[in-house]
Amino acid sequence: MLIVMKPGVLEEDIQNIVSFIEAKGFDAHISRGKINTVIGAVGGKIIDKRAIELIDSVQEVIKITSNHKLVSRAFQKEDTVIKVGNAQIGGTDLAIIAGPCAVESLDQLESVAERLSACGVKFLRGGAFKPRTSPYSFQGLGEEGLKYLRHVADKYNMYVVSEIMEISQIPMLLEYVDIFQVGARNMQNFNLLKELGYIKKPILIKRGLSATIDELLMSAEYVMAGGNRDIILCERGIRTFETATRNTLDISAIPVIKKLSHLPVIVDPSHGTGLRDKVAPMSRAAIAAGADGITVEVHSCPDEALCDGAQSLYPEQFEKLYTELKCIAPILGRTL
Amino acid sequence: MLIVMKPGVLEEDIQNIVSFIEAKGFDAHISRGKINTVIGAVGGKIIDKRAIELIDSVQEVIKITSNHKLVSRAFQKEDTVIKVGNAQIGGTDLAIIAGPCAVESLDQLESVAERLSACGVKFLRGGAFKPRTSPYSFQGLGEEGLKYLRHVADKYNMYVVSEIMEISQIPMLLEYVDIFQVGARNMQNFNLLKELGYIKKPILIKRGLSATIDELLMSAEYVMAGGNRDIILCERGIRTFETATRNTLDISAIPVIKKLSHLPVIVDPSHGTGLRDKVAPMSRAAIAAGADGITVEVHSCPDEALCDGAQSLYPEQFEKLYTELKCIAPILGRTL
Amino acid sequence: MLIVMKPGVLEEDIQNIVSFIEAKGFDAHISRGKINTVIGAVGGKIIDKRAIELIDSVQEVIKITSNHKLVSRAFQKEDTVIKVGNAQIGGTDLAIIAGPCAVESLDQLESVAERLSACGVKFLRGGAFKPRTSPYSFQGLGEEGLKYLRHVADKYNMYVVSEIMEISQIPMLLEYVDIFQVGARNMQNFNLLKELGYIKKPILIKRGLSATIDELLMSAEYVMAGGNRDIILCERGIRTFETATRNTLDISAIPVIKKLSHLPVIVDPSHGTGLRDKVAPMSRAAIAAGADGITVEVHSCPDEALCDGAQSLYPEQFEKLYTELKCIAPILGRTL
Amino acid sequence: MLIVMKPGVLEEDIQNIVSFIEAKGFDAHISRGKINTVIGAVGGKIIDKRAIELIDSVQEVIKITSNHKLVSRAFQKEDTVIKVGNAQIGGTDLAIIAGPCAVESLDQLESVAERLSACGVKFLRGGAFKPRTSPYSFQGLGEEGLKYLRHVADKYNMYVVSEIMEISQIPMLLEYVDIFQVGARNMQNFNLLKELGYIKKPILIKRGLSATIDELLMSAEYVMAGGNRDIILCERGIRTFETATRNTLDISAIPVIKKLSHLPVIVDPSHGTGLRDKVAPMSRAAIAAGADGITVEVHSCPDEALCDGAQSLYPEQFEKLYTELKCIAPILGRTL
Repeated sequence: MLIVMKPGVLEEDIQNIVSFIEAKGFDAHISRGKINTVIGAVGGKIIDKRAIELIDSVQEVIKITSNHKLVSRAFQKEDTVIKVGNAQIGGTDLAIIAGPCAVESLDQLESVAERLSACGVKFLRGGAFKPRTSPYSFQGLGEEGLKYLRHVADKYNMYVVSEIMEISQIPMLLEYVDIFQVGARNMQNFNLLKELGYIKKPILIKRGLSATIDELLMSAEYVMAGGNRDIILCERGIRTFETATRNTLDISAIPVIKKLSHLPVIVDPSHGTGLRDKVAPMSRAAIAAGADGITVEVHSCPDEALCDGAQSLYPEQFEKLYTELKCIAPILGRTL
Repeated sequence: MLIVMKPGVLEEDIQNIVSFIEAKGFDAHISRGKINTVIGAVGGKIIDKRAIELIDSVQEVIKITSNHKLVSRAFQKEDTVIKVGNAQIGGTDLAIIAGPCAVESLDQLESVAERLSACGVKFLRGGAFKPRTSPYSFQGLGEEGLKYLRHVADKYNMYVVSEIMEISQIPMLLEYVDIFQVGARNMQNFNLLKELGYIKKPILIKRGLSATIDELLMSAEYVMAGGNRDIILCERGIRTFETATRNTLDISAIPVIKKLSHLPVIVDPSHGTGLRDKVAPMSRAAIAAGADGITVEVHSCPDEALCDGAQSLYPEQFEKLYTELKCIAPILGRTL
Repeated sequence: MLIVMKPGVLEEDIQNIVSFIEAKGFDAHISRGKINTVIGAVGGKIIDKRAIELIDSVQEVIKITSNHKLVSRAFQKEDTVIKVGNAQIGGTDLAIIAGPCAVESLDQLESVAERLSACGVKFLRGGAFKPRTSPYSFQGLGEEGLKYLRHVADKYNMYVVSEIMEISQIPMLLEYVDIFQVGARNMQNFNLLKELGYIKKPILIKRGLSATIDELLMSAEYVMAGGNRDIILCERGIRTFETATRNTLDISAIPVIKKLSHLPVIVDPSHGTGLRDKVAPMSRAAIAAGADGITVEVHSCPDEALCDGAQSLYPEQFEKLYTELKCIAPILGRTL
Repeated sequence: MLIVMKPGVLEEDIQNIVSFIEAKGFDAHISRGKINTVIGAVGGKIIDKRAIELIDSVQEVIKITSNHKLVSRAFQKEDTVIKVGNAQIGGTDLAIIAGPCAVESLDQLESVAERLSACGVKFLRGGAFKPRTSPYSFQGLGEEGLKYLRHVADKYNMYVVSEIMEISQIPMLLEYVDIFQVGARNMQNFNLLKELGYIKKPILIKRGLSATIDELLMSAEYVMAGGNRDIILCERGIRTFETATRNTLDISAIPVIKKLSHLPVIVDPSHGTGLRDKVAPMSRAAIAAGADGITVEVHSCPDEALCDGAQSLYPEQFEKLYTELKCIAPILGRTL
């Protein structure tokens, strides 16, 4: 923490700040510039920088981003590669996670999984618990849905990705799911994140609608602090003034995160744009920008989907997209 | 729902849309303009408008905001006045909710409640469960904190406002609390909202950081649909590009909500600005703009607060503010 | 400028940075912490901090906000009070600037000025040049409009506030106008600002739709650097994700600016909300938050206004508002 | 325009609205639903929809996006292909515009143009007039810079793209420049846009920092209304709450614009991200998402650039990027 004093403050003011921070357990380093004196505060506990900023002689307090973060490149130089059975996320192979928004029936799931698996997709997604804006909308099949996911994934040699809504569901999901997904609205549900730090399966964390990249990394840190190192970050659109798309998919988050962290980053173009005809262009953009994969909604019959049909791809559209991504992959030294 | 067809579409295209929406249970009303034909769809069930917008002959689909909403002025013309013991929120009296960010000890709570009560404050706030960005920060006293709140509130004839974090806490809070607060991060925790619709105590809902006013009203609707009509809405700042304040307190939300809904609206200037010296100006602004009250953090000794001390007022500052609000109230036909 | 080195960098890396910044004319002060070494760079010329941030051994570069800014409280402690004839802006008196959006005719202007002046309003506003989104909209009366403004203002002992669109209009406006207004879209028209630094009349600068408070202050600095110290800052709404109002009026900008700068701050609730029925609440909020005045659109017959009638007050509405502001003023130690 | 009446309004209210809009030259079409009556207003002149929304019996006024727009796909189905000498923008060939941020000297320009031209780049960019945040920064070489651009472009068979700052510069730029660039801050300088509608050279319009896609299209419409049909749209980042990048480059704007308009769209990843190491990923993303080209800053010696060196590519970096784009192009049926 660096405390920048106002120009022209008295020696007394400086000493007051030094005493204040020493009382909080910090070492103080004074450095006197032509205009401002800067006091470096090292080694103390967590402190709210605003408390110091309110002191009259202080101009500004600057927090130096902590470096011992488990998520950071400073802590681990090489990319994290997460192994899921014989598949991986974050290595040379691109990870494609696909499937319907919600699990609706065994038939629905089988018909789409068959097509996906034939392409080469290894991760099957589907929601069993659906939080909906309206109380009258389809709320998901619950555990029944998880059973279908497991059954169908096993049949086609795929792995299951599904969303966890609350702590109490952890034991149930552990039985059926290979990767736990934390939704955008739960990105800062710290109690949930803490518990997920103790399990032994990968966690896919979606960026909140108004979360900064820094906050997304902090959420990953929360899980890692518990011991679980297998975290996948997912960009899925932020809220801006633009209304032409549901959200603004922040593709530049990919190179930004790649520089700051060793964790794999994927993109969700379905929720990020909310419209089927934008999904393929944004999927290609994500891979071209260096993402480690995508998670995309595909439905055998989107017009009859019980949830988010408008953003689900037809199987044919997905197959075309998959071929395009196959061509882009080697340009970035990746395989699909 | 109004479906605007592209200019120059064929009669066949129009009939296709008509069949499509009739199959979904809507009545269709065709209105042919010089350039566009518009099809009104009336009476069907919930439908994702994007599904129709993806049809090639369609230019735009416009959802007419529903009117039978329980939260709307169309449903109830007169302002909702919520009674809490011998106090009220939403009537002529302004409601001032004050107290520390977190309950820290019985002493801390008593010392601040005594000062607040002497002013005339009727609502005592304080957090017993604190979700924190860092796992190492103070996490709240839990039920112990609720007991202190109840004890101190009873002693000074005040009412308790405290935050609920998850469904499982409802029975416990029912014992101690007069008004349940739903935090900004839980504004779209629909399962929690649904349960709160069944209890018999008022619910104070805080606007999410990136929630539109429309979404805030939808959250209130969720609670009201369960039967609980006593909802207080709370503006507490939205996330924008401006970094000079923690959030941008959207004061204009007050007259906007007042026009759309009959529910009381209050403002939280402490979280809305994040800085003590901005709290008084923004509190005055809120009341001058027509808010039904404020919820504000006050601490006997902010410098030693375990949580958000930088945005807590000193008791003297609060007393000065209270006097100012007393002077502004009659200009708006209110009392304090 | 403070250059924070990555943890674990070599002495060589540190020396490279020191040489780099010394070559640019800075003095370097090294301060070694437990984790990071921080290099203070003092006294050099303007440098793009990103250039240093791209160096591999550097973690972060922090610019310490410059202090010798003419706009800052550090440069001038007391509030700037601008004298315009026998009126003032920024002193004890609140400044009310009112009038139609556009000057339409002499009659229109006289009828509204008479009512305003009877209230006690000293500043008459009106646009002579109107940049419009559509090429088919009314574009303003030009110099004719300025003549009307001068004529009517003189008749009622008022002062003229009108907008300047481009440098070439300066000589013409100097003849007719008492305060030059710079519109939101011109806030960063640096060539225009520079020229306005050389004239001897006050400049009212409106905050751009997506401008930070810091950028608004920088624009004021641009004018002041030329010698003109009479600057009035004007908050008029920023663009956010909320669509219920045209813009989000950032009332908290008032206390923020008041702390950073000695310049007067006013608010434009007409453009800030875009809707007549929000103008009075937001005007009261602005004054209650500590603004030095407001600029508000009033039209004798808003339904026939050629420009922005929907946000113009009826004269009766303005008179009621004026009375309300008169009551709020003394609470803040102001007069009206 | 569709006027949605409040539920339960009287027949009289409906007739009042009908009279009101007929008086403004509209035809009225009444359509009565179960809950709302909707009045379609066809054929009148421009009217401010807020004026009708303020009427008490009206619930909402919906503007149907105009269809006769020259920029729209409805007006022209096929993509616009702009010819510049023997090059083109918007056809099968991708357009790469590259060069330094500012023209600094003939040598600087030649050294970079030689490398670019060797790659196959046909468009040379460079600023002759530089509006800068600080009055002490380099302001550009003016006409001298334009002469260098022309001279160097001719030597290497390239075309010149350079920014116009104000109307008075049009005749001068006409002599030297092949494509006129309108900067983000001038996107709504309507007087300038109008004048550019009368010239016979292509106009590249950059999206403003806080401009919606709809507003960008309106700016293009302004130019086209004057007769000039050769418009290139350029996405260059919007302002959001995220601070990790200078702006958030809105890649999804590409498929959105492609659906709404026939005009070519390019992307500026240099200003869009502000950081050199993000330029290549975002360039690839832009092309993969379907952009018709990019405009990118390249400097022989970025560390000594007088302007925005931190976002300029080294020639080697550009060459690598060019090769990557060459590989992506055929996947989208394009050539480079």
